[in-house]
Amino acid sequence: MSYLYERNFELQKKIAMEKLEDALRKNLVDEDIISLLEKINSLENYFTTSSCSGRIVVMEMPEFGDKLNAKWLGKWHREVSMEEVKKAIEKHEEGMIWFMLHSPILHVASRSLEDAVRLLNLGIHSGFKNSSIKSVSHKKLLVELYSTERLDIPLGENGEIWVDEEYLVKIVGMANRQLRRAKGKLSKLEGEIERLIDGNKQ
Amino acid sequence: MSYLYERNFELQKKIAMEKLEDALRKNLVDEDIISLLEKINSLENYFTTSSCSGRIVVMEMPEFGDKLNAKWLGKWHREVSMEEVKKAIEKHEEGMIWFMLHSPILHVASRSLEDAVRLLNLGIHSGFKNSSIKSVSHKKLLVELYSTERLDIPLGENGEIWVDEEYLVKIVGMANRQLRRAKGKLSKLEGEIERLIDGNKQ
Repeated sequence: MSYLYERNFELQKKIAMEKLEDALRKNLVDEDIISLLEKINSLENYFTTSSCSGRIVVMEMPEFGDKLNAKWLGKWHREVSMEEVKKAIEKHEEGMIWFMLHSPILHVASRSLEDAVRLLNLGIHSGFKNSSIKSVSHKKLLVELYSTERLDIPLGENGEIWVDEEYLVKIVGMANRQLRRAKGKLSKLEGEIERLIDGNKQ
Repeated sequence: MSYLYERNFELQKKIAMEKLEDALRKNLVDEDIISLLEKINSLENYFTTSSCSGRIVVMEMPEFGDKLNAKWLGKWHREVSMEEVKKAIEKHEEGMIWFMLHSPILHVASRSLEDAVRLLNLGIHSGFKNSSIKSVSHKKLLVELYSTERLDIPLGENGEIWVDEEYLVKIVGMANRQLRRAKGKLSKLEGEIERLIDGNKQ
């Protein structure tokens, strides 16, 4: 299994890096995660395949968990104001409407199982306590670095809103605090990756 | 790594099985997951270390994410009535109060990485789409089987409740529907494990 994987790793990294370059040119990558991605990709045994720096979301879903047919009404990778959230809610038409806080998440392909485990432990140590190895095959060996902050709050359905403005103030405040906390973990992770880079140089 | 692990596996399984027997005697295991646990543990390359069959929860936390100091006000591994949820909320005194739906979760130690990957893929195939390998070391190789249903809803703080009864009716209904769906996945997983057992017999 590992031999096949090794053979593919360099080619996969090359393709992934071209995709990342393209996404960077098109401004599709969250700005506050770019330097972390660059540091991880500078390590020869890893490359990033996708990432999100943490976000606050207002979204519409026809049914619970039906992400395929989800519609973003508002999505911010930074703290938000009540005004912004209210404007997003006003766009709601049908299906279920949700307010969510999503923790930062990174998917990182690793060359060997040992590399994957090293990154997994480093992630957990940096506060990404929901980190894990998501898949192991001859095609990919993928570590997910994922933190614990999370809100999943139904706000209403089919044009009807179930909560009042005061409740929105509370949950927007909570989401902003939690996003700040989660972004702090990104810095910590970046520091740990730097130490890994320095360790490799020695 | 694998040699050391192999050597420990039998002993660890023996200890885990004694703990499970003890928990079963004390009625500490969710009833609707027992037959699944027994089937997994009948396979020579796996043993379960912890599990929850999915639950609806009302809890108090001094601060966001501070699970250590969390206090259960209500916890049900089955569908709940409004009356039960309201009674739990009435117990709220201080800190943040939350209403949560937690998907079923199982932690399963595996003998080899190949065994872990086989179970991981079987879990994902059964609808446990958040499954992953949580840790890899000479001491343990742990698969987490975890589904996607989830609600994380703040209800209030320090004795003040932010939502009205109508909202509670909505989220209790949603939680019950999602719990039912998640429990259905447990049956599917059990069916897949049975096929694995039958496959081993042939």
